[in-house]
Amino acid sequence: MSASDVGDGVKRAGLLIVGSVALDSVETPVGKVERALGGAAVYSSVAASFFSPVRIVGVVGEDFPKEHLDFLGSRNIDTRGLQVVDGKTFHWSGSYEGDMNEAQTIATELNVFQDFKPELPDDYKASKFVFLANIDPSLQLQVLDQIEDAELVACDTMNFWIDNKKDELVEVLGRVDILFMNDAEARQITGEVNLTKAADKLRKMGPRYVIVKKGEHGALMYCDGNTCFAAASYPLEEIADPTGAGDSFAGGFMGYVANTGELSDGNLRKAVIYGSTMASFNCQDFSLNMLQRLTPEEVDRRYNEFKRLVFFEEF
Amino acid sequence: MSASDVGDGVKRAGLLIVGSVALDSVETPVGKVERALGGAAVYSSVAASFFSPVRIVGVVGEDFPKEHLDFLGSRNIDTRGLQVVDGKTFHWSGSYEGDMNEAQTIATELNVFQDFKPELPDDYKASKFVFLANIDPSLQLQVLDQIEDAELVACDTMNFWIDNKKDELVEVLGRVDILFMNDAEARQITGEVNLTKAADKLRKMGPRYVIVKKGEHGALMYCDGNTCFAAASYPLEEIADPTGAGDSFAGGFMGYVANTGELSDGNLRKAVIYGSTMASFNCQDFSLNMLQRLTPEEVDRRYNEFKRLVFFEEF
Repeated sequence: MSASDVGDGVKRAGLLIVGSVALDSVETPVGKVERALGGAAVYSSVAASFFSPVRIVGVVGEDFPKEHLDFLGSRNIDTRGLQVVDGKTFHWSGSYEGDMNEAQTIATELNVFQDFKPELPDDYKASKFVFLANIDPSLQLQVLDQIEDAELVACDTMNFWIDNKKDELVEVLGRVDILFMNDAEARQITGEVNLTKAADKLRKMGPRYVIVKKGEHGALMYCDGNTCFAAASYPLEEIADPTGAGDSFAGGFMGYVANTGELSDGNLRKAVIYGSTMASFNCQDFSLNMLQRLTPEEVDRRYNEFKRLVFFEEF
Repeated sequence: MSASDVGDGVKRAGLLIVGSVALDSVETPVGKVERALGGAAVYSSVAASFFSPVRIVGVVGEDFPKEHLDFLGSRNIDTRGLQVVDGKTFHWSGSYEGDMNEAQTIATELNVFQDFKPELPDDYKASKFVFLANIDPSLQLQVLDQIEDAELVACDTMNFWIDNKKDELVEVLGRVDILFMNDAEARQITGEVNLTKAADKLRKMGPRYVIVKKGEHGALMYCDGNTCFAAASYPLEEIADPTGAGDSFAGGFMGYVANTGELSDGNLRKAVIYGSTMASFNCQDFSLNMLQRLTPEEVDRRYNEFKRLVFFEEF
């Protein structure tokens, strides 16, 4: 099973993804975009769609360009769960400087997300694989309440919810199998500087697997109280825009797991590498531009380059 | 060839190491030591001695405890190049906080290093493998001038020399095969935020291989203008004292290369992992305490744990 094989293997029920759908304004040392397609659910759904059919849940306003809906639909992404309502689409604007490891938020306008109540189409409720992308944890819980018999549930979050909705977030953690979090957030929520200790505390809050994203420094997957896997990030000479890299990582990971349906240690390692692959491509252009023109063959090629990058002895 | 095999294989001429020999006072969140054995040449020599005979070049004062000389001698380290002169041994004191990724220097007393002129015993001059550990680049050049026919020369340095002796340092870079540098220093000397670009610039200054040490984030080895290898760092639940981790890394790497004598891509990858192995052990206790009680079998076990840590697909 690889990105080029999608459509050949056994089709699973697909991957349900809920999260923000946004129009982002982003400035980096390389350039800028205004009200471009973005949002955690969009980045992760498009990344996941390289591996698995996706069902997206979210909300947009009347200002959301039809071409974006068409693009998602063209990618094996079921958009019946994407409500279009009166008002303006969620808007985030931010900038990056220096090593671009951290975004400076300039403005966040919740807009239509303020009154959003996710309502899952009936056939979504039986989804076997669920990814709660970054969004208000209260909404993540509302989605979880509608899910009937999932095999695997994962979530992501951000510092804002740790600061402002910690109780709800802790409740989410108690109900998921996999947690994606960046290193700063893992330290923030646990109060542990040491990442191994932080991951241990996080696993005690619920998730069997904790995957810590470290940006240019790769990712660590923790299971059974020990690090089970350390992945490098793919080295890029030029980063255009890191927005959505973490979402693309989680989307690639979950898409691969959803389509293979296998939770073995070896398969989860491959999923991490596919996640790193999607994250690295995402950074090479603004908004969804790179994922939009990327081919499954390029995905598989970069996955294989990871072997050359990290293997010693056998490779 | 592994750490447990030292003494069995073909004995190479050994590894020459020049650098600081120090009595360090260090405080970390875990504890502190006063005037304990330290210095770049000591950490790297002891780490290298797990793989290869070592010849050390440096200077100490009359206050340098005899037990330290005895310890080095007991480890297959030839100390005839270690001058004992009137005056006090080089002293560094520093502290670490939080994630301990960066030392705060409290005091540096050059003492006997102020007037040091390295003079190599005649039989040292034919050393095939040379490591110029962190020290004034003028001294690194004086050692290079006495070396006759080395197969491989590597160097390390620190931000202080980039700030204060850049011309001499650049001359050193023009005469070495391998450069060890941490990520902040690589960015500082090149003015490039992107590490791939920084390494490319550094390689144009001389070294065929640039190895960027990233502390808890592992190391990257650059060759031919591209990253050829990314190594994770071994995850530790408790870091007692990171002093000397970079030196232990370089020592483990160079000791392994010196004893195998092979510069193939595959062998250099293994050397990086042995370097990471030695660096991780070094962080588990203060001063040389951990390297002092470490066994070759423990070194080989951790080397093998790296496979489990980073391999996907075949492992």
